[in-house]
Amino acid sequence: MERKELLYTGKAKKMYATNQETVLLAEYLNQVTSLNGAKKENVEGKGELNNQITGLIFNYLAEKGVASHYIQEVSKTEQLIREVEMIPLEVVVRNVSAGSFAKRFSMEEGINLPFPIIEFYYKNDKLDDPFINDSHVKMLNVAKDEEVMEIKKQALEINAALVEMFRKIAIRLIDFKIEFGKTADGKIILADEISPDTCRLWDVNTKEHLDKDLYRRDLGDIIPVYVEVLQRLKNM
Amino acid sequence: MERKELLYTGKAKKMYATNQETVLLAEYLNQVTSLNGAKKENVEGKGELNNQITGLIFNYLAEKGVASHYIQEVSKTEQLIREVEMIPLEVVVRNVSAGSFAKRFSMEEGINLPFPIIEFYYKNDKLDDPFINDSHVKMLNVAKDEEVMEIKKQALEINAALVEMFRKIAIRLIDFKIEFGKTADGKIILADEISPDTCRLWDVNTKEHLDKDLYRRDLGDIIPVYVEVLQRLKNM
Repeated sequence: MERKELLYTGKAKKMYATNQETVLLAEYLNQVTSLNGAKKENVEGKGELNNQITGLIFNYLAEKGVASHYIQEVSKTEQLIREVEMIPLEVVVRNVSAGSFAKRFSMEEGINLPFPIIEFYYKNDKLDDPFINDSHVKMLNVAKDEEVMEIKKQALEINAALVEMFRKIAIRLIDFKIEFGKTADGKIILADEISPDTCRLWDVNTKEHLDKDLYRRDLGDIIPVYVEVLQRLKNM
Repeated sequence: MERKELLYTGKAKKMYATNQETVLLAEYLNQVTSLNGAKKENVEGKGELNNQITGLIFNYLAEKGVASHYIQEVSKTEQLIREVEMIPLEVVVRNVSAGSFAKRFSMEEGINLPFPIIEFYYKNDKLDDPFINDSHVKMLNVAKDEEVMEIKKQALEINAALVEMFRKIAIRLIDFKIEFGKTADGKIILADEISPDTCRLWDVNTKEHLDKDLYRRDLGDIIPVYVEVLQRLKNM
């Protein structure tokens, strides 16, 4: 597979065409951002860690019957993916109170929620990815009612699989953000990435943050903990 | 009916017990507030205008088959209502872009929406009435799934009736906030008030604001336009 022209540069990835029409190449970048890009930095080694972590997780999910756009890793920082039409929604699933959710409800972080909470954010940099409800999703023509149901169903299945996977490696899955895309034949599948950039991961024993909150909250270097997550996934 | 002890003082109303167990007396106050009470002022005459407007609207809705907690006016500033257990939700219905909605989507005000948009805000002063989704409503034990469906159904019926009513008096109903309560036998009914304090009302011809936005945005006195709304309702 040959890497062809650059199609798109995002905050954490570059997307390239390949010599196969329905296949893209995603290059994972070292750039770390927060506050919707207002805070950013280059962190050597981040790209290859997230490329590998995402690959391992998407392979794990495939074994559990969850389809995704992931095809295979082609270099330390690159992976091949199926081309899909991205749905401009950040789908957040929460198992434990943290972050903006804890703030919204003036709740301490770390409290188990009675059931997984799903939230939608409209992926739109100019609007700062606002939190929206199902009625807004429909109004914005982001997804139809039945697609929203499908997205929620898949999000809960993915959550169940990920909670179990992380539990095996002594990590508590607090919450995570995923995105979905539509294939040419209209099927909705998991796309984008799943990594410590997009999940809150707490060590079960030490309660240490193994995720981007270290960067967001200036708590320390992300590389050692991303390496730790990768090692645990490899040894699973 | 006798007014008994004061049960509760809100931002715009005082609630009293009466000599009948399931009946309360609501006294409409002159206090106007915005920014969740951070900005407030006493405006002579506001209480009696909203008491009368709410009475006329609840009577109109009753004729259209919409049940509410309203029983009858007993003085210029007081009305009798059925006692219900209030559901701590501000249910907002939007027909036209305005206010926080227009800001969220960086949309001009005054654009007709493709269908009425319903939003829920968790009624909680300490949290500043945050915008929430259906999943949060369930988590907070605010309402069960089937109650949420019932609330949305009633909100749309109320909206249809109000749009038609205001159209008759040359007013465009932009959006409004309502609240619901539960009767002793578990029935969900419209409660609280419907007035220019809780609706955005634009004159169809002049596009003038006939509502509390005059106060929120320091555009002028509210009393003359509240009087105008009351007069048009009386002459309907």
